[in-house]
Amino acid sequence: MKEPGSLDALIEALRCLPGVGPKSAQRMAYHLLQRDPRGAQKLSGAIADALTHLKHCQRCNTFTEEEICSRCASVKRDSSQLCVVEMPIDMNVMEQTHAYNGLYYVLMGRLSPLDGVGPRELNFERLINRACDGQVAEVIMATNFTNEGEATAHYVSELLRARGLKVSRIARGVPVGGELEFTDAGTVAQAFIERREY
Amino acid sequence: MKEPGSLDALIEALRCLPGVGPKSAQRMAYHLLQRDPRGAQKLSGAIADALTHLKHCQRCNTFTEEEICSRCASVKRDSSQLCVVEMPIDMNVMEQTHAYNGLYYVLMGRLSPLDGVGPRELNFERLINRACDGQVAEVIMATNFTNEGEATAHYVSELLRARGLKVSRIARGVPVGGELEFTDAGTVAQAFIERREY
Repeated sequence: MKEPGSLDALIEALRCLPGVGPKSAQRMAYHLLQRDPRGAQKLSGAIADALTHLKHCQRCNTFTEEEICSRCASVKRDSSQLCVVEMPIDMNVMEQTHAYNGLYYVLMGRLSPLDGVGPRELNFERLINRACDGQVAEVIMATNFTNEGEATAHYVSELLRARGLKVSRIARGVPVGGELEFTDAGTVAQAFIERREY
Repeated sequence: MKEPGSLDALIEALRCLPGVGPKSAQRMAYHLLQRDPRGAQKLSGAIADALTHLKHCQRCNTFTEEEICSRCASVKRDSSQLCVVEMPIDMNVMEQTHAYNGLYYVLMGRLSPLDGVGPRELNFERLINRACDGQVAEVIMATNFTNEGEATAHYVSELLRARGLKVSRIARGVPVGGELEFTDAGTVAQAFIERREY
């Protein structure tokens, strides 16, 4: 016997979520239908709403319901610093540190040739235009320290330095509170190479 | 700065999915919006569709778009056997074995007092009525071998035996292809206790 059509369709649709395979999709579908139909109703509506209302900020490229997000529109932020991150979530992490008061640019991804994400997909032209607005004095690369994040930071920094901009990279090293004994050798090696003078 | 409203709402709504915490919900939301808006559109529609069209089979309680699901309506199945499972997915697993040709009853859950799921929530009355239709000669309990599944099987079997029905439980033991060395002691102990004569 086949599953009924709309159940099949729901299970299949759930697989578009990242990290959700056939088994999880089934579990999620049954959960939504059996345990939480109100949550399911909300979810359906929330997806449709978000698709309708959210667009990219004209300046920093993050999701917003306005033309320009409230952070970019704020006069309290230092417009001479531009921090480049992969995703909006990274921006949130930076904000939580309260260590930075400049502006952001969100790439919405990273270079990942295997997934077909190259410079064109990430629209580096737009970042360059943003960085060359005459107000930005320093671009701070805060992409992840994965291979892909590193490659992205390197590529972008080359583009921006060619236009005479100062580009920096957030520091690698042993995490705060971290013990050498439990830190991987690559990180310790980098922390050694990138040591700072007192 | 706050996240824009409809993004917030989407992240919150995604948390109704089982096993999805705040971080995954954010990741899923960004993925849907950035990488897969068509998938998101489909998902939204599929949830709404499923909520509209799916109901519970009058006989076996599984999800179906008809009053009675095609398995229960089939004349090729042995109506003297009734296999009780927790979820539709368990029924699918049983079907894949091709070892069973009787009918099913899907509890849509298990006794779980901590989650507020008791006999009333699982509507055992309905199962009893189903099992006492005069055709069922044996009820086979195929709930999971977790504590909750075992308790559910025990509870249900008491109810059904009180009504004069023959009730059995699928076997516990060492998995097929399993080696004793890598099987937990509890399972080996049960396999010993429930040994079968050749």
